[in-house]
This record gives sequence, C-alpha cells and structure tokens, in this order.
Amino acid sequence: MANWKNLDTLKAYDELLELWNEVSVKDVMAGESGAKRVAEYNVPIAEGLTFNYAARPVDDKVLNALQALADEAELADKYKELYNGAVINTGENRLVLHQLCRGQLGDDVIADGVNKRDFYAKQQARIAEFVKKVHAGEIVNEAGEKFTTACQIGIGGSDLGPRAIYIALENWAKVNDCLKMDAKFISNVDPDDASAVLSQIDVSKTIFVLVSKSGTTLETLTNEAFVKNAIQEAGLDASKHMIAVTSETSPLAGNPDYLDSFYMDDYIGGRYSSSSAVGGAILSLAFGPEIFDRFLQGAAKADAAAKETDITKNAAMLDALIGVYERNVLGCDTTAVLPYSQALARFPAHLQQLDMESNGKSVNRFGEPVNYVTGPIIFGEPGTNGQHSFYQLLHQGKTIVPLQFVGFKENQMENDVVIEGSTSQQKLKANVAAQIVAFACGKDDENKNKYFEGDRPSSIIVGDKLTPESLGALLAHFENKVMFQGFVWNVNSFDQEGVQLGKLLAKKVLAGDTDGALKGYAELLDI
Amino acid sequence: MANWKNLDTLKAYDELLELWNEVSVKDVMAGESGAKRVAEYNVPIAEGLTFNYAARPVDDKVLNALQALADEAELADKYKELYNGAVINTGENRLVLHQLCRGQLGDDVIADGVNKRDFYAKQQARIAEFVKKVHAGEIVNEAGEKFTTACQIGIGGSDLGPRAIYIALENWAKVNDCLKMDAKFISNVDPDDASAVLSQIDVSKTIFVLVSKSGTTLETLTNEAFVKNAIQEAGLDASKHMIAVTSETSPLAGNPDYLDSFYMDDYIGGRYSSSSAVGGAILSLAFGPEIFDRFLQGAAKADAAAKETDITKNAAMLDALIGVYERNVLGCDTTAVLPYSQALARFPAHLQQLDMESNGKSVNRFGEPVNYVTGPIIFGEPGTNGQHSFYQLLHQGKTIVPLQFVGFKENQMENDVVIEGSTSQQKLKANVAAQIVAFACGKDDENKNKYFEGDRPSSIIVGDKLTPESLGALLAHFENKVMFQGFVWNVNSFDQEGVQLGKLLAKKVLAGDTDGALKGYAELLDI
Repeated sequence: MANWKNLDTLKAYDELLELWNEVSVKDVMAGESGAKRVAEYNVPIAEGLTFNYAARPVDDKVLNALQALADEAELADKYKELYNGAVINTGENRLVLHQLCRGQLGDDVIADGVNKRDFYAKQQARIAEFVKKVHAGEIVNEAGEKFTTACQIGIGGSDLGPRAIYIALENWAKVNDCLKMDAKFISNVDPDDASAVLSQIDVSKTIFVLVSKSGTTLETLTNEAFVKNAIQEAGLDASKHMIAVTSETSPLAGNPDYLDSFYMDDYIGGRYSSSSAVGGAILSLAFGPEIFDRFLQGAAKADAAAKETDITKNAAMLDALIGVYERNVLGCDTTAVLPYSQALARFPAHLQQLDMESNGKSVNRFGEPVNYVTGPIIFGEPGTNGQHSFYQLLHQGKTIVPLQFVGFKENQMENDVVIEGSTSQQKLKANVAAQIVAFACGKDDENKNKYFEGDRPSSIIVGDKLTPESLGALLAHFENKVMFQGFVWNVNSFDQEGVQLGKLLAKKVLAGDTDGALKGYAELLDI
Repeated sequence: MANWKNLDTLKAYDELLELWNEVSVKDVMAGESGAKRVAEYNVPIAEGLTFNYAARPVDDKVLNALQALADEAELADKYKELYNGAVINTGENRLVLHQLCRGQLGDDVIADGVNKRDFYAKQQARIAEFVKKVHAGEIVNEAGEKFTTACQIGIGGSDLGPRAIYIALENWAKVNDCLKMDAKFISNVDPDDASAVLSQIDVSKTIFVLVSKSGTTLETLTNEAFVKNAIQEAGLDASKHMIAVTSETSPLAGNPDYLDSFYMDDYIGGRYSSSSAVGGAILSLAFGPEIFDRFLQGAAKADAAAKETDITKNAAMLDALIGVYERNVLGCDTTAVLPYSQALARFPAHLQQLDMESNGKSVNRFGEPVNYVTGPIIFGEPGTNGQHSFYQLLHQGKTIVPLQFVGFKENQMENDVVIEGSTSQQKLKANVAAQIVAFACGKDDENKNKYFEGDRPSSIIVGDKLTPESLGALLAHFENKVMFQGFVWNVNSFDQEGVQLGKLLAKKVLAGDTDGALKGYAELLDI
C-alpha cells in the first residue's frame, strides 16, 4: 500500500524548493544549447505523439529532484493501485476506473460483484449494436426514415469532453467518409441554448442522447423536458427519439420513455467519462463505433506508457511534475493550453474542467487543509488566433504563464494552398515553433516597448496528425497528468464538493426561501 | 493637459496600499448588511444595464481611496483628452477614436485634414447603402441570385469582436425577423479552418468580407487566397464575391478585385474595431444596418455615462478601479468573466483580447519599465456550464479569482418551459444569484471537504434583455473599463508590440533561416 502524504512533508519537496533559481529558460535555450535541448528533451507518449519539454525550466538537477519527488510520493505505485481498483476517490468512497474503459492495465477489477472491464466493454458493445441498427436504417423514426442527427443533452463532463472530441474529429471524419450523423449538444439551462439547437435541426430525424449519471441533474432534466415539448409539438413520440446514458440504478435506466439505455457507474467521474458510454453513445452515433474504438485504443496506449517509473520516459508524469515545480516553486497560478489546430478549438475548455475541477482543492484526500497551492487556473484558445489576441500579455505582461502548446505535422483535411512559398499548414507550424523560441529567448531592444524579456516556459506535444488514435492519446496524457499532480498534492482529484453550495442556494432562490443578500439578488434579477 | 504618472508615484496609491486588509466580503455580505449592499451598490451603465458591486471588496473607506486615485490620476480628464483627439497611443503616435464611431462625445476631431466623425459616419452610410442593395437583390451573384451568407475573413480584432457580437444577436435576430444573412468566420491560418467553413456554405451565394487594416496580415491574405481558390474552382469570379474592409492607403483599397471597399483608419485598434467598418460590414450584412446602428447607439450611451467624475456614478471607472485594487493591492492575477447567457458564449474570448492585449504590458506609455503589476489574465465560459466545470477551483481552490458575472432578466428567444415550478430562465437567474452569495458567504462544515471559505469577490452586470442596444452598452462598458485601467497603470492600452517577435521568427522559419532552438523545432515539426 502506498503512503499518502502531504507534499510539504516530503524530503524531496524541500530539496526542490531549494532549486527556485536553478534554470533560466532564456539562457539554456540560447544557441547550440537550445538546439541540443530540443533534440534531447523528448518523451514519446503514444500514437506518434511526443512531449517536448526543452523550453520548460528544468535541467539535470531539477529533473533529478523531480525524480526523487516522484519516487518519494510513490506516483507509479499509486497509479497501479488506482488501476487495480483501490478506493482512490476517498471523499466518495469510490474506485476510479476511467482507464478501464479503454484497456486492462493490471488485475481484473471486481466491484459490486461485477468484473468492471467486462461491464464497460459490454456497454460499448451494446452501444455499437444499437448504433449499427441506426446507421443501417433498422432503427428509424416514426415515418420509417433514417435518423441523420444525434443530439447530446448533458452538462459538465457529459458535454465538454464529448463535444471537444466531436469537434476534433468532425472534419477528419468528413474527409475520411465516416461522418455518419451530425452531432449537436444542448447543455446550458439558459432556454435559448436548447431553442437555438432545436432551430438548427430536423427534430423528426434526430436521436437525443440524454446523459445524467444520477438521472437527477437539474439542467439536463430541464432540457430534456424542453426537447420533449418540441418533439411532441412536432406530432412525434418522444420515446422514439431518445436514448439514455445513466447509471443502472437511476430512474432513467430501462425506462420505456427511451428507445434504450446504456450504463456508466459511480467509478467514473463526469470529467473522466468521455471514454465511457457518456462519450461512447454520441461519438459512435456520429462516427461509427469503430472510430470510437480507435480513440479508446489510443488512450489505452498512453495509459500504458504512464506506468513507467523513470520520469524521463513517462511524459504524463514528467509533465505533471514540471507543472508542480512551476506552480509550487516558481509560483505560477495559471497555465495556458494552446493547440495549433482549429479542430482542437474546444479542447482547452475540456481541459479546463478536467484540471480545475480535479485539483482545484484546498484539502487533502483525508479532508485536512493543505498549506501549499494546488491545481492552477487553465485557459486557452487555438493558435494562431491567440497570437492576435492575448499573447501580448504572455510575451510582455507582468505575470509569467507556463504554456502547453500542441501541434501536428499534417492537417486533417486535404485542402491547402501555397502562398509566398509555403502552405498554410507550414505557416501554422512555423508560428508555433517561432512562439516557443520567442517566449523562451525574448529579444533585446533599446526601445523598452519592443523589448522581450523572454524566460517564459513552454512545452509542446507534437503529433503526426490529429486522428482518433492520437486524440485518444492526447486526452489520456492530460488525464494522467492531472492524476499524477493530484497524487503529488495529496488531494482527491475525483470528487467535486465545490459545486454543491451553489446548487443548494439556487434551490432556495427558486423556492422563494431567501433572505439577506440572496433576497437582494433575487429582486435585482427579478426572479 | 493631464499629467501622466506611474501608479506608484501617486499619493492615493500609497493610501490604497494601506487598505489591503480593509474588507471581508464574507463579513459585509452576511445577513442584512448584505441585503443593504445589494440594494445600494448599484450604478446604472446604459440601456437598462446596472453594475452591482455589492460583493466586491470595497466599503466607504476603499471607495474614498479609489475616488482619490481617480482624481489624482485624472481619469476623467484623460478620457476627455482621448475623445477630443489627443495622441493617447504614444507608442504608435496615434489618436484613439473608436468611441467616435458611435457618437460625438466632445469636440470635433480633425485629423489628416478630415473630420473623423464624418469619416466614420460616411463609411457606415456607404456600408448601409451597399448592404441594402445586397438584401434587396440589386447586388447579386453571377447567376442573378441573392446572396444568403456573409463570411468574414480576418483574425484577432477583425474576428473575435464581430464574431462574439454576431453570436450574441443571431438568435435574437431570428426571433425578431431580422436575420438577413447567415454569417461565418474564417480566422486561423490552419487550413482546416477555411476548409471546414467552405464545406458548410454555398460559395456561389456567399459574400466574403476581407478585413485587414494594413492589407498585409499574413493569416488573412492566406485565407483570402484559400477562399479565392474555392470560388474559382466553383467556376465563379472572385471579384464578384468579395468586399474589403481596410485602410484607405492599403493595397486592398479601391481595388477592382473587390465588389467594393470600406475604410477604417489607424486611430482604431483591432480589438476596438467592432464599432467601425470592421464590425459594421459583416454585422450589417447579417442583421441589417439599422440593427448595427442600434448597437452603436447603445455603446454611445455607455460612453457618455463614462464621463462622470464621481466614481459611484460611473460604472466603467468604478469597475476599473476596483479591478486595480484587486490586482495591485489584493494580489489577484486573474479575473473570470461569467455571462449567464448562452448568446454571450464567445464574449469572454473577445474580452480576453480586449483586456490582455491592451494592458498586458510591462512598460509605461513612455516606454519605461513599471514596478507594479498591470493587466490581469482574463478567461470565462457561460454559466450555468462553468458551474459544472471550473467553478470547483473558484469555490474551493487555493487561488482567489475575482469574478465578473453578467445576467439578464429575460431570455432572447420566446420559448421556455416550466419544470418543478420554474422556467429555465428563472433557474438560470437563480443560479447566478446563488453563485454570487455562495462565493461571498461560503458555508461552514465540520467536514472540511464540504467547507466553503467564502470571501470570493464578484460583481454582476444585470440587464433586462440582451438586445443590440444593451450589447453595445455592455461592450463599451468593458472597453472603457480597460481604458481607465490603462490610465491608472500609465500604460499605452492601444499598441501591441508583444505580437511582433513571433511574427518575425515565423518568417525566419518559413525562409529556412534558422539555427539553434528554432532549427530544432523546425525539424521536430517537420516544417
């Protein structure tokens, strides 16, 4: 059994704190030293992805200290305990099994009398069977027509991950002739969200995928009612247009109001659920179950790579540790995720949930306050767009923000154009290369307004092309990074008690049970 | 002439620094004190918008100190100098005239021998005339058919603002029968961005709006070529499908390659250009020139309200000053913008550019390094979605993030549904009210994992409904807030030298002129 200790009780952490002034990214990235680092500071992830950390603020000394921290914090052992079925989610007394949806990393995990790998595989097989019937025209609408659109109704983890993945693969699927159905998403309780989506689709040819683990999520049930109204107003039978993704014990399970229901369980948190039926149903409907399976295979390979104990061979663990160094030793509050790929436009929003909801905690996994900072703030937009927006602050602002770039050698669609001797894809890549060096090395100038201090740390994940496999590996890399950071900070990365108070107070407002400021705001907003 | 001094040379700043421990939001927002603050801490902006700052960390003492700072920093005088045509953009030796696009705040501004208000009004009139012909079917495609789609090609300020505004009003326009044309946007140099948009539209019925002030923006010219290829491949004449928005001296001006060209000038920066022809052409095509004019009128009213010298009557100035207090005295690096309106989904991305590109600086307006922090990091997503995502960290994380909520009494579209006794719009509003109180007041709990420390500051801008007028006022509020903060920090909020180095190095990479790290990354990315 691994020892779960607070970061500030570890000897390796004290040693790491000594190294607060060890590396100037500007110095080490200059000239031939920089070239050497770019060539050497690479770790393969999986599916052609490489994590390059040449421009992160590390050297042999820092790396050795981080390895000592990884060892003393028993990161590899904790991961092993997790995938072998230990109760890692202490707050909710639950196992943490999202990796099991995509591969068998260790022992069989038996919980509630069930082999969980079999359970997840069975749900995926049931989804595949259902989806094939939809695509083949065996499951059709009341008029006997094929369904053309799938629309997810869910919020948080039931929305951000599946939506980001759909957007990431939509154009790839078009080019590769496997976009079987358009996917749409309704998430916000703002009635205009559902109205807008409904105005864009032919309800009669749409299957809605209602996603709620508990079957009680207020936003989701409200939007379900909204959509059912629209279906009925179109003279249709809602039960012929909806499937449910839920837990086996929820009121939505096996309910005749739905064409079918597919199951997840309590061992997969919302923000980790893209690999489960939560992502599986909508993405299989959109792209076919084979494509979703390829996505899972990619994730499984990254999961396997994360078992390695040598941090210079384990990209997720190394990325996590350097992040801890930047957060706890160098004092950076924020990290930006900057994919140079328009297809990853909503991937930062998913990572924002994944990271901030997992590690934005002030207590350790035993519920005791910790005396060090934990998860950072995450934001990002695709490059090159961000370059013409907030990069000004990143380059010349007073606050240092570590950067996580993502880039691909090839674009997804086949179309490109040569202008001034280069393709758009070459321009895109040249820009990300240039940015890393600009952030690291800066530029001297007598005009201080044109002076770039440099010494801004970044890393890049480089892939051949954004495909189902590499996207799976990319997602798993970040999931595993967040997991390892949670281990280092000794927090429970798998609960989210911070979302409860707002829910409680919103119910009070709706019940008219208000006083003090709550009453004031209710009046201000005319509720 | 106003005195331009660094913040840390002002007496009022020293006094403000003394007040680092003055207000506990948790204490002042409790019970009847909270109710009283909500009722009293309101400032009207314009068009029904109210800025409520009850849950920001201020009291009479802090407000007095902020008023003294506003006076000593001569904020109202500086604004007056700006709208009367002073060279406020010192780095580029330019006037700053975006407010003049939407109203005459002071004296006539004559520059380059031209009355600039007349110039902007004339461009808007020319656009209106052109757009009316398009909508009336007088300007048609080669087959004599009406154009149905308008597609903006631009990046940064030529993209984020107009796109956010289009999304904000698209559904409102549908309901109000004034969605004249669909709008699309191509921005990223990633070739898949243009390919994806082109795959969604009928090129033969599309007018492309090419936006580049200089006529030399690499991404935009590349995407123009991309689009021209597609037009030509469809057997069409590109010059019959494109208009240009540019400066009068650019190679795009009056060029027969375009149906027409409309003009902006050097006195309006990209991120402030939504009110100029940059926003005017695409938004007038989409909604009609009358709607765009209503948007400008709303902005003009907020601009006029920002002249007030009493900070408790000037929402933009007050918001700016409280932000400075949170940034420089309380030490907060980041601010989140959280609109409870799905229509404002991309408004935070625009504010991210507006704020971070304007004030993410380390030198003052004379090019001298400053010794205090300047513009914060800005991020945000719409609520309630964010509640199921990153709010965990905002509630229970180790880093305090001041929050800027936005909410409306009514939704835009007419559809709503009653579930459990309340409409979706009521649920949406109840949630934002609940969040403000939850962040401020927290909740005690013996289980420290369920404990909420509270004392998280926020404010809310409340409006009746998101309309062209209120959206204009909302945008102007933030523009003016950023302007006032720039005045306080004594930075030039209107240049962006931080974007130059990356461009320069990208050109080097494309020219093969690399060594050191740049060569390494070029190889890694296979450029």
